[in-house]
Amino acid sequence: MAFLDLIERKRDGGALSPDEIQGFVREVVAGALPREQVSAFLMAVLFRGMDDSERRTLTLAMRDSGEVLAWTPDPRRPVVDKHSTGGVGDKVSLPLAPLLASLGFRVPMISGRGLGITGGTLDKLESIPGFSTRLSSERIRELVEVDGVAMVGQTDRMVPADRILYALRDVTGTVPSRDLITASILSKKLAEGLEALVLDVKCGAAAFMRTRAEATRLAESLEGLANQCGVGTRAFVTRMDQPLGRSAGNWLEVVESVECLRGRGPADLRELVCCLAGSLMVQTGRADDLAAAIGVAAGELDSGRPLAVWQRMLERQGADMDAYSRKLRSDVLAPVVQEVRSPASGCVCQVDARLLGEALRRLGAGRLQSGDVVDPEVGFDRIVQVGDSVSAGDVLVRIHARSENAAETAISQIANAFRIQDSPVDREAVRIT
Amino acid sequence: MAFLDLIERKRDGGALSPDEIQGFVREVVAGALPREQVSAFLMAVLFRGMDDSERRTLTLAMRDSGEVLAWTPDPRRPVVDKHSTGGVGDKVSLPLAPLLASLGFRVPMISGRGLGITGGTLDKLESIPGFSTRLSSERIRELVEVDGVAMVGQTDRMVPADRILYALRDVTGTVPSRDLITASILSKKLAEGLEALVLDVKCGAAAFMRTRAEATRLAESLEGLANQCGVGTRAFVTRMDQPLGRSAGNWLEVVESVECLRGRGPADLRELVCCLAGSLMVQTGRADDLAAAIGVAAGELDSGRPLAVWQRMLERQGADMDAYSRKLRSDVLAPVVQEVRSPASGCVCQVDARLLGEALRRLGAGRLQSGDVVDPEVGFDRIVQVGDSVSAGDVLVRIHARSENAAETAISQIANAFRIQDSPVDREAVRIT
Repeated sequence: MAFLDLIERKRDGGALSPDEIQGFVREVVAGALPREQVSAFLMAVLFRGMDDSERRTLTLAMRDSGEVLAWTPDPRRPVVDKHSTGGVGDKVSLPLAPLLASLGFRVPMISGRGLGITGGTLDKLESIPGFSTRLSSERIRELVEVDGVAMVGQTDRMVPADRILYALRDVTGTVPSRDLITASILSKKLAEGLEALVLDVKCGAAAFMRTRAEATRLAESLEGLANQCGVGTRAFVTRMDQPLGRSAGNWLEVVESVECLRGRGPADLRELVCCLAGSLMVQTGRADDLAAAIGVAAGELDSGRPLAVWQRMLERQGADMDAYSRKLRSDVLAPVVQEVRSPASGCVCQVDARLLGEALRRLGAGRLQSGDVVDPEVGFDRIVQVGDSVSAGDVLVRIHARSENAAETAISQIANAFRIQDSPVDREAVRIT
Repeated sequence: MAFLDLIERKRDGGALSPDEIQGFVREVVAGALPREQVSAFLMAVLFRGMDDSERRTLTLAMRDSGEVLAWTPDPRRPVVDKHSTGGVGDKVSLPLAPLLASLGFRVPMISGRGLGITGGTLDKLESIPGFSTRLSSERIRELVEVDGVAMVGQTDRMVPADRILYALRDVTGTVPSRDLITASILSKKLAEGLEALVLDVKCGAAAFMRTRAEATRLAESLEGLANQCGVGTRAFVTRMDQPLGRSAGNWLEVVESVECLRGRGPADLRELVCCLAGSLMVQTGRADDLAAAIGVAAGELDSGRPLAVWQRMLERQGADMDAYSRKLRSDVLAPVVQEVRSPASGCVCQVDARLLGEALRRLGAGRLQSGDVVDPEVGFDRIVQVGDSVSAGDVLVRIHARSENAAETAISQIANAFRIQDSPVDREAVRIT
């Protein structure tokens, strides 16, 4: 069957058979389809959508387009992972992966780089001196089997269909299709050979999904499809109106993650890390009740064991531990540090994560386009949160910049990010559903 | 502005500015836009549509992407043309162009080739020995200024934007966009430098537009836009459920066209030719009333003058007049001729032009894909029409084929094309609106 027939069928609202979708993915990977036909097809999918069967077949065919990780059977050590749709200051993966390993899970955490205003786990990890995220699948398997955790980038042999399709979607306006997003996210996670998966779907001003309705639809779509594909999955919708935690920027987020691993750090970060870990305990039958499981996870963080797992992971993945420790002790690394102070006393009622995210990217912590090099040291810390009380002159945020000019630009970009009011404001729970 | 922004804006239902559309056409012709981006944009246009301003700007920018014909001012000899959306047996252009020239118009008729089940004027003309449809624009101008008519293919220098976009639409499922169809048709006609244009929008089983509502929408869209672009235009919706006339196939249609130019031939063909000629007389102020103008056109056909114009045109465009006359005198040219006879007596109530068109293409008269060579001699003649009375054993259609096998295939393909009933059936007028 000619691919043009499939484009026309999808354009007219029809569905493709499993054979047709598998053939599509096979030919995409083989480079056998003209790019102009694939992009027209993707745009038709964006408008017409895919049904459950099409979405499932696409996801599985993309997963199977490359290597799928396999694990020694061990019911006491389930293989699990987490995925987040991304937010400003979202460093959850960094404390979560060692916490999960410390709780007895095996965690082959394959992450991505930042694009847009949301940071990427790989960029954050690479701010650690010597740390390598490019490991072979053999080495990933070895580390996860022995130590319980590896935090790495995708290998070239995994999910090539997604790499090809994503690169095309990126230049043809076909990224924001819920069906294609779902297949892209899950094909990569399913290629890790997971037994359970927890999803953090961000919702709010700085999230890909701005409204609660959109985020809930995506969460349900991801959760439903992953379960159909045989991986026990739970999706949470969480707030992304203000940054998560009190710092944003690659190295600055490592610092905050280590605080979390020490049982300290911001409450919202700890809350979310423990919620996701607790959910995986419930999902794999290691706990009956989410609230109790969250308590176990919090106790585990306080024990210091996850911090030890973290440090061993850094060593195994090549970190220069002396340089890392020295870097961790330095309060300031960027050439220019400036504080923004509150003009008034009152209670913080808004911290706009989108404005901060855009300023962060401009500072050099993120990418304006794929391939840009990120600056590990720039960013924000000491960011106030909604519900904080401030006096006039208190620090609202501290800016770490490459130059005075860059700092001034950031200050003007975030001028409207903070709002202070007289009456008290309640803190909001991170978790929405 | 990056083209990706325009794709995204159109995808989200927005409109492009005139500058943006002109830039798009310029870059398409310069080959400066990646094909995958252009096809994604065209698919977004198919789903979202274009507003009046976008459609007008696109049409004019496409017209101006190449050479536009210019004419010596002469109010007594308006420059006019006709376009049809195509049908089975639609040979109207062949008698119409010389008739219009005979009526005093200048007619630079630039036509296309057949694709799908509808024939192309160029394919029909090229069944005339020696006749050339590839003339330079200088030669076209000379013939039209002196003799009043030339029937040719597009020159390489005219409307390159349409050639590029059409080739891309053809392989990406983006042909059936009313906006893109409108711009494609009119950009080519406007490049002829016309003062008036008449449009024949076919409607029915064998037409691109199956329903009257669709045909009417396309007719209104074409008429409205052409008038906005400064060319006085009228669109007629006409029936394409049964073939037009009694023959279909390249040379067989030339034979019937010559009959029409002799004042004879099928009534429906003569009716449509005279209607379109009459309309152009009204549109250019040479007649007040369509009915009277149709009478003038019919009288002109009967005068023999249009036939003389036709013969002079054949000579000027290189036809071998002796070979043409000999060919015209032969009743049968294809190696195999078979008659299909009526199994019963009664009145013809259906002749399915789609089935006949598909069989015609399979016989070799049309193309299964662009670039196929057409067979000039094969086809159908002596086709009965709705309203004809037949006795059992009367010929329903005569098949001209390359081989016995091909004839048998055609017979089985058209087995259900004809329906005969006992009670009488009225003939239907060709013109719907």
